[in-house]
Amino acid sequence: MALNMTLVSTHLDELRSALSADRVLTDATSLQHYGRDWTRHFEIRPSAIVFPVKADEVVRLVKWARKNKVGLVPSGGRTGLSGGACALNGEVVVSFERMNRILEFNELDRTVRVQPGVVTEALQNFAKANDAYYPVDFAARGSSHIGGNIATNAGGVKVLRYGLTRDWIAGLTVVTGTGELLDLNKGLIKNATGFDLRHLFIGSEGALGFVVEALVRLTSPPKPLTVMVLGLSDLESVMKVFNRFRTHLPLTAFEFFSDIALRTVVDHTHLAKPLGTDCPNYLLVEVENTDASTEAAILESFEHCLEAGWVLDGAIAQSEAQARDFWRLREDISEASAPFTPYKNDVSVTVAKVPEFLEKTDAILKKGYPDFKVVWFGHIGDGNMHINILKPESMDRADFLKRCKGVNADLFRIIAELGGSISAEHGVGLVKKEDLSSTRSVAEIQIMRELKSVFDPDGIMNPGKMLT
Amino acid sequence: MALNMTLVSTHLDELRSALSADRVLTDATSLQHYGRDWTRHFEIRPSAIVFPVKADEVVRLVKWARKNKVGLVPSGGRTGLSGGACALNGEVVVSFERMNRILEFNELDRTVRVQPGVVTEALQNFAKANDAYYPVDFAARGSSHIGGNIATNAGGVKVLRYGLTRDWIAGLTVVTGTGELLDLNKGLIKNATGFDLRHLFIGSEGALGFVVEALVRLTSPPKPLTVMVLGLSDLESVMKVFNRFRTHLPLTAFEFFSDIALRTVVDHTHLAKPLGTDCPNYLLVEVENTDASTEAAILESFEHCLEAGWVLDGAIAQSEAQARDFWRLREDISEASAPFTPYKNDVSVTVAKVPEFLEKTDAILKKGYPDFKVVWFGHIGDGNMHINILKPESMDRADFLKRCKGVNADLFRIIAELGGSISAEHGVGLVKKEDLSSTRSVAEIQIMRELKSVFDPDGIMNPGKMLT
Repeated sequence: MALNMTLVSTHLDELRSALSADRVLTDATSLQHYGRDWTRHFEIRPSAIVFPVKADEVVRLVKWARKNKVGLVPSGGRTGLSGGACALNGEVVVSFERMNRILEFNELDRTVRVQPGVVTEALQNFAKANDAYYPVDFAARGSSHIGGNIATNAGGVKVLRYGLTRDWIAGLTVVTGTGELLDLNKGLIKNATGFDLRHLFIGSEGALGFVVEALVRLTSPPKPLTVMVLGLSDLESVMKVFNRFRTHLPLTAFEFFSDIALRTVVDHTHLAKPLGTDCPNYLLVEVENTDASTEAAILESFEHCLEAGWVLDGAIAQSEAQARDFWRLREDISEASAPFTPYKNDVSVTVAKVPEFLEKTDAILKKGYPDFKVVWFGHIGDGNMHINILKPESMDRADFLKRCKGVNADLFRIIAELGGSISAEHGVGLVKKEDLSSTRSVAEIQIMRELKSVFDPDGIMNPGKMLT
Repeated sequence: MALNMTLVSTHLDELRSALSADRVLTDATSLQHYGRDWTRHFEIRPSAIVFPVKADEVVRLVKWARKNKVGLVPSGGRTGLSGGACALNGEVVVSFERMNRILEFNELDRTVRVQPGVVTEALQNFAKANDAYYPVDFAARGSSHIGGNIATNAGGVKVLRYGLTRDWIAGLTVVTGTGELLDLNKGLIKNATGFDLRHLFIGSEGALGFVVEALVRLTSPPKPLTVMVLGLSDLESVMKVFNRFRTHLPLTAFEFFSDIALRTVVDHTHLAKPLGTDCPNYLLVEVENTDASTEAAILESFEHCLEAGWVLDGAIAQSEAQARDFWRLREDISEASAPFTPYKNDVSVTVAKVPEFLEKTDAILKKGYPDFKVVWFGHIGDGNMHINILKPESMDRADFLKRCKGVNADLFRIIAELGGSISAEHGVGLVKKEDLSSTRSVAEIQIMRELKSVFDPDGIMNPGKMLT
């Protein structure tokens, strides 16, 4: 079914009466601001931005959109990297910015009921204030919304220890593409009464419906954390160090970044280089000091890796401020790369296949981009690597994209051979939908289409995303 | 679409040539043996039992069933308690008994690839032999299959600490009702490429398709465990003791059972009573000795609960043999109740609502069954209670069932009011399908029907289960 690409004035009048006039914006600045995420490769063209404040307003919006054949694009903190929150074809953007309340904390269940527009860091801080911990964490914590995290099953830097967003959602209230309000799983730990629709919605990128409330599980805060940076001689050492550390220490993070990545961050932030020695590759390692013996075990593992020649140099943060700076060396990579209009890949393999993946990808990147700056980093502990190709200043953007897509063909072939994923944590959105078949089979994609039809028969929920 | 309720001889010939003749059984003993699970309230009437040995045989079976309009019932260890593996209407039972190989252990990923017919305990033992741990555990461990565990998202006694089967499935290969072989998620930790069909299949009771292979995640073995039995004065003390223990100790299990449950087990097994004092309620508590201070912390918590008057008596197992006996007091309840043809309820609420649930349910049971023996036990740590009503010897089975279903109406109303579930871990199957709407909304049930149609358009996969 073709959707309307422009709103007529009666549509807008209906919208304004369904919400209130001040929560329907159509000015050019708002359309550009709310109509996109962090991707910069698309021409943005929404019809209006609306700001519901409660679930039944979202129900009314969906029913309105069905009746008028208008696409709806969900919008959270707009930190997505796959174009999932971009409105290109006259859709109405549903911003959850004003549904940003923390509704209820249940101390016995250790759950917190939130609206979808709660910022990740606000949830983390709320947990901390209640002697608890929300462990899903990543660089965009200050802007991203919990609703967007759920829509993409956000991962980040602590997955190795704490899993993904999926693992922390005890209940989910959603509005489907037919305007049904579903209250899924209600916070139960054990509930064997049919298909778990909650899990189907997590990671569905708004294609089945929109999250209007979530019941999030919290855990106990970790014991003090030790943060260190290690400098490595070569790529082969990465997994050797990982295996040594993870078998001897309670790791909470194990992050890799290349020399070019470090230099890009240091140039951008003016942070101090962490080590006296320049190395081709670096690791940021975080360990929880679960008991008195952890400190000695860290030093032992460090010395073992030095003696084996895998590690050339290393530094352990001596203060919380230094630990934060070490983390910034890894977490500011995206921001430091942004001025170079990077082309981003976000891929994963199983941990056991990381060495083969690193070796083969290194060869592809050297062959495919001999003249480009490649910023390489990732979460070794969960098999997820980010590859940012920086655009040479002199190069035309269209030429640059064409060149990057050419290299993708080689890269995605390797990933398919290794049974990996072409989108580890950014989602499919607009950016990866043409390549979905390199990770999912034809039969799976057909089933996905049919599942979408069940929840969204008119194709109004985030149209044109994920599926072609 | 109506399915055939009897197989004609040409159907059987085709089956025998699709597999081999010795893997198609039609004798009365086999039909009765393989055609049911642990429920005893149904009249069993399968047409044949088949034993595939590999995934592509299952594909061929499904295609054969589609062509001939024959229902297929998946069958694992047949320890189910909801009738999910019962064949009542001439279906062909697909036993996974001969697909029971452990295929591959990946030490780096700490995953093990298994066929669906691997017995839970065999997987646990395999993990142990490889210095790892498969933590999903329950009384039927010696017979249940991993395929059945996945189909029902099995929980059990360690959920408090380790979660459910869902949390340990890294990849899943299934055959849908159209005969498509889907290889879902491939063991990836991070994979944001569309709807997670793996999670939709977990807990779907064979209604969408059958599991033909699974990639199961393992973890590190726990440190030594301390097992104790506590005797409690009243139901209100249960949660008080739980809150004290869980805030001070690393719990791995926290199980409740009533005095009648204990006496039923002691009579059946001739195990020694655990305590000198007879108490109305008991707890089995298991704690991991994570460090040297745990033992002292256990004693402190125990004394705190004694002084508060919540605990009347207690005993800590002094040997592994005694710990096993303590566990049998809890785990043998089902077996000890079996001769009394119990009517089983398996319900859950959130942990915070357990006190209100216990109080209200106690009142309903006393009012509804003043003359019946009620064996009550459950997993306090995850909000799941089991209620077994024992049939008085003199009572007719039909009268007994009618009486139990009458009490269900009151019980299920309370559970709905508390936002709980009428099937915490046994699944829906045949036993709970008429009552599904007390946990799932009309809209959810309609969506479940439509999802089933996507995967199983002809309704041949475990027909008549879960959905009416």
